[in-house]
Amino acid sequence: MGFVPLFGCRCGLEDRYTHIMKSHRKVLEFHLRSRMGFVNITPQVREALRESGIREGLCLVNSMHITSSVFINDDEPGLLEDYGRWLEKLAPFDPSPERYHHNRTGEDNGDAHHKRQVMGREVVVAVTRGQLDFGTWEQIFYGEFDGNRRKRVLVKIIGE
Amino acid sequence: MGFVPLFGCRCGLEDRYTHIMKSHRKVLEFHLRSRMGFVNITPQVREALRESGIREGLCLVNSMHITSSVFINDDEPGLLEDYGRWLEKLAPFDPSPERYHHNRTGEDNGDAHHKRQVMGREVVVAVTRGQLDFGTWEQIFYGEFDGNRRKRVLVKIIGE
Amino acid sequence: MGFVPLFGCRCGLEDRYTHIMKSHRKVLEFHLRSRMGFVNITPQVREALRESGIREGLCLVNSMHITSSVFINDDEPGLLEDYGRWLEKLAPFDPSPERYHHNRTGEDNGDAHHKRQVMGREVVVAVTRGQLDFGTWEQIFYGEFDGNRRKRVLVKIIGE
Repeated sequence: MGFVPLFGCRCGLEDRYTHIMKSHRKVLEFHLRSRMGFVNITPQVREALRESGIREGLCLVNSMHITSSVFINDDEPGLLEDYGRWLEKLAPFDPSPERYHHNRTGEDNGDAHHKRQVMGREVVVAVTRGQLDFGTWEQIFYGEFDGNRRKRVLVKIIGE
Repeated sequence: MGFVPLFGCRCGLEDRYTHIMKSHRKVLEFHLRSRMGFVNITPQVREALRESGIREGLCLVNSMHITSSVFINDDEPGLLEDYGRWLEKLAPFDPSPERYHHNRTGEDNGDAHHKRQVMGREVVVAVTRGQLDFGTWEQIFYGEFDGNRRKRVLVKIIGE
Repeated sequence: MGFVPLFGCRCGLEDRYTHIMKSHRKVLEFHLRSRMGFVNITPQVREALRESGIREGLCLVNSMHITSSVFINDDEPGLLEDYGRWLEKLAPFDPSPERYHHNRTGEDNGDAHHKRQVMGREVVVAVTRGQLDFGTWEQIFYGEFDGNRRKRVLVKIIGE
């Protein structure tokens, strides 16, 4: 008595050890040398997941800025061009404060706040057996709509 | 023998106590006196997080209605005006059943269901060290597109 | 000594048992006999939740494809027609590679990649007391924009 033998807490605790909630946080940084652009960030998110050691859970990836997006689609250059032209039609760049009252603040990025709403702020990806649980063509993109400066993306993974 | 001394289960259990999964649920209520409008709900979500005691996890904030949105963007009055005019262009208010067949049901809010799809239903925010893990300008908004009645937003936080 | 009596690990472990993180994964399959279409998948997601035994947590439902969506809105046939016509206006079907450079790859589904961005890839739903924590009219839809083939939706639930 006086101490519990090592195997003393084994009555099911190994199972539990595998069910302890873990979390992992990583910030990715980008600096695009253009106003608009798209970067496939799937490798960086995979690396963050590997570091986390999490096998089952959810992985949130979000832009920490309000003029850029994180979204999932195909890594095909023609499609990314298409998105650029389409977003320019839906919410054209216009530094004047007439079209975008937001530009009365001295900013010229009113359009970028609108483009970001179409493409979204974040994605949540399932984590299964330690992998991003993706269909064949799913790739995670950072979409920049007001570049030429340093921007950040947050990866937060919770699970076991 | 016969019982295990109190410290007997301490072989790592303190650590585990800090890894127990918790969840917290809160419903926020709104009643906007206009058809369309935006409310910064970041303080209410922060308060819900504080109540939860959760330090690491994910915070889901979603509209419980199908004619309103929860989204993250800048708290700048000109931008919110811009969103209003832009959404009116993408999906104009029109109570007739010609433009929106949905209005054949007797409703006049077909436009609101479309505006909500552009702005989104929900956001998922990382929780880190007990705080909403936000970039500098990120603020959570409730976007109303069919107001003049009571509406609800759900906050659900899971983590440890 | 030599073994720990059964009650030996009861010092609070029952509580912990109820807080062990669980996860559940299910893939739903669809084959729409039309290019565009909407399917209410709420019953299938409810069934997955029931199977999981999870009482408190988050439920991710996402398309595993990049030309279809999962979204939450009203199950009203007029509204679904409205969405179809509206998306056709925002991103018209056009198999030529002039409008959508993506179609230079030999695909004809450039429009579908755009429609999917408007309607979204995924929803995250709160799980409370073993139920989808929904407002009155919330229903989960699969939105197909490039049908006539087998497609998959992932349901991933984490919680306790």
